[in-house]
Amino acid sequence: MTIEKKEKYNVAVAGATGAVGNAMIEILEERNFSVGNLLLLASERSEGKLLKFHGESIAVRTLTHDSFEGIDIALFSAGSERSKEFAPSAVKAGAVVVDNSSAFRMQDEVPLVVPEVNPEKIIEHHGIIANPNCSTIQMVVALKPIYDKVGIKRIVVSTYQAVSGSGKKAIEELSIQTKDVLNFKPVICSVYPYQIAFNCLPHIDAFLENGYTKEEVKMIDETKKILGDEAICVTATTVRVPVYSGHSESVNIETKDKISGEEVKKLLSNAPSIKVLDNPEKSEYPVAIQAAGKDEVFVGRIREDNSIEKGINLWIVSDNIRKGAALNAVQIAECLTGSDK
Amino acid sequence: MTIEKKEKYNVAVAGATGAVGNAMIEILEERNFSVGNLLLLASERSEGKLLKFHGESIAVRTLTHDSFEGIDIALFSAGSERSKEFAPSAVKAGAVVVDNSSAFRMQDEVPLVVPEVNPEKIIEHHGIIANPNCSTIQMVVALKPIYDKVGIKRIVVSTYQAVSGSGKKAIEELSIQTKDVLNFKPVICSVYPYQIAFNCLPHIDAFLENGYTKEEVKMIDETKKILGDEAICVTATTVRVPVYSGHSESVNIETKDKISGEEVKKLLSNAPSIKVLDNPEKSEYPVAIQAAGKDEVFVGRIREDNSIEKGINLWIVSDNIRKGAALNAVQIAECLTGSDK
Repeated sequence: MTIEKKEKYNVAVAGATGAVGNAMIEILEERNFSVGNLLLLASERSEGKLLKFHGESIAVRTLTHDSFEGIDIALFSAGSERSKEFAPSAVKAGAVVVDNSSAFRMQDEVPLVVPEVNPEKIIEHHGIIANPNCSTIQMVVALKPIYDKVGIKRIVVSTYQAVSGSGKKAIEELSIQTKDVLNFKPVICSVYPYQIAFNCLPHIDAFLENGYTKEEVKMIDETKKILGDEAICVTATTVRVPVYSGHSESVNIETKDKISGEEVKKLLSNAPSIKVLDNPEKSEYPVAIQAAGKDEVFVGRIREDNSIEKGINLWIVSDNIRKGAALNAVQIAECLTGSDK
Repeated sequence: MTIEKKEKYNVAVAGATGAVGNAMIEILEERNFSVGNLLLLASERSEGKLLKFHGESIAVRTLTHDSFEGIDIALFSAGSERSKEFAPSAVKAGAVVVDNSSAFRMQDEVPLVVPEVNPEKIIEHHGIIANPNCSTIQMVVALKPIYDKVGIKRIVVSTYQAVSGSGKKAIEELSIQTKDVLNFKPVICSVYPYQIAFNCLPHIDAFLENGYTKEEVKMIDETKKILGDEAICVTATTVRVPVYSGHSESVNIETKDKISGEEVKKLLSNAPSIKVLDNPEKSEYPVAIQAAGKDEVFVGRIREDNSIEKGINLWIVSDNIRKGAALNAVQIAECLTGSDK
């Protein structure tokens, strides 16, 4: 289903007060998305809170089943439970939902879209389009040109994920714990089970029976769905690190046909939304703090892995709140309305 | 060559004022190594500095070619250049050198030893025994029982390495930068090319022409030498993270024969120097801040990697200054003198 062509679209942001919701509003403004009315929705305790959009103050309203009357596009980032509860009401009211949660991602009738990778899936929606997991998005953007050129058999990924992915309370927790450690005070853990300051936690989202975390399984399953390739082999270890913003990923791939490190560099240098930063002799490679606030997926440390015949190592960094969530959702809305053309 | 049996051994620590040197002195004391005289050596600017050993204050002396008269065992941790310059003088004076630098590690006549893995190599020394790189030591300790049981074909490792591995100035830099970020002050980088506070740098040691860092090549080459297996395939991405102490590693292996995650857990639970911490349902897994100051190699997140037929993922954490450097060197000295028996 495409969306009816209009001059301006009425847009709702559900979860407007969260880190991703904030970024969605910012990005709609930055990219001059043709917004008619902007409806900002959140839980009851944020009712009346004012947020800026194009210089105007908009009061946040409480998300209810009746919120979506007259809305064309609803961007959801209020957690899986809220998406499951309220997205169907938005669809019933005639809106197309772009959902940032994991609620619908693996449902067959729901397209899971990264506009640089599988934009053609958007029209297959039945009211809901799912935005993939942050760590998956940046990886598939970087791997797609290689996948198209030489095929990819297997991916082994280890992540270095920022606390902003866990929301505003996690950002606060990192700051408070860091100060406490520096002042030799006892550290209190509430968002994470262990101290995150000056530490690394190989634990993102809940553990499953097979010993993997949900985050790891998301990277495995979503990569297959987005690339439309059930045969691609993926394994992941996802790790939270004491970084505020920007996910980094150490990615090892086995390609089907041989490709050199130099060829990968050229390929990615010409690909959309990717910026190659890779001059080891000048200590040039992507790092999280430089990716924060930017739109691109940054790739560096590109080199052949000689432990197998057709191996490549890459280091992939992106702003997890922007390309990993809010930006990708707005890009989907742009594709939906044809404003990406 | 074995060492002449004695009641007590005269021990020199070259690089006594560094982080690893300090830990060597502490560990010699903790493990009641039979020390006769303890000679503490460092560069001229530390001359006269007092360090404690078994309650006694010992003045640091300047490291010279004439320092080693009467010394039985010289533990070196003063950097590659100093090792190259002064270790031969120690050997000439009759000492056996246990060298923590990378200066001699890949020389054929120099044993590269992790006592839990290849202690039998120690007697092959010609005056110098090399201590492997920190990130290699903890990995091979954890992998050896698996290697012996089912064989290992390939290792893909991504590291999360603490700043203490870069010495005391790096520890200071992390603290100062962290305070500056929290106080919105500009950050000054001197040890690392980018801000390390709240950031991850995929860059440890110098870059080589093939795009790998020396640290990555150390992990590849040293693993082969320690396991005595030139056919084992290894690739590595080594990353500095804003952690004071304790290296973490995400390790993916392909074994020769099939082994289940449960079998790996049992195997490692009974292996020397390894502590398995692996109860996902209780959020139990190793983390750097808990490994700091401990002797064991901690292993968790043990699970089958179903992206290949015979794959296992592990998360390996250890104190990089202790097992990764000072403790391993003292253990070599214990093997040398037979006091490990």
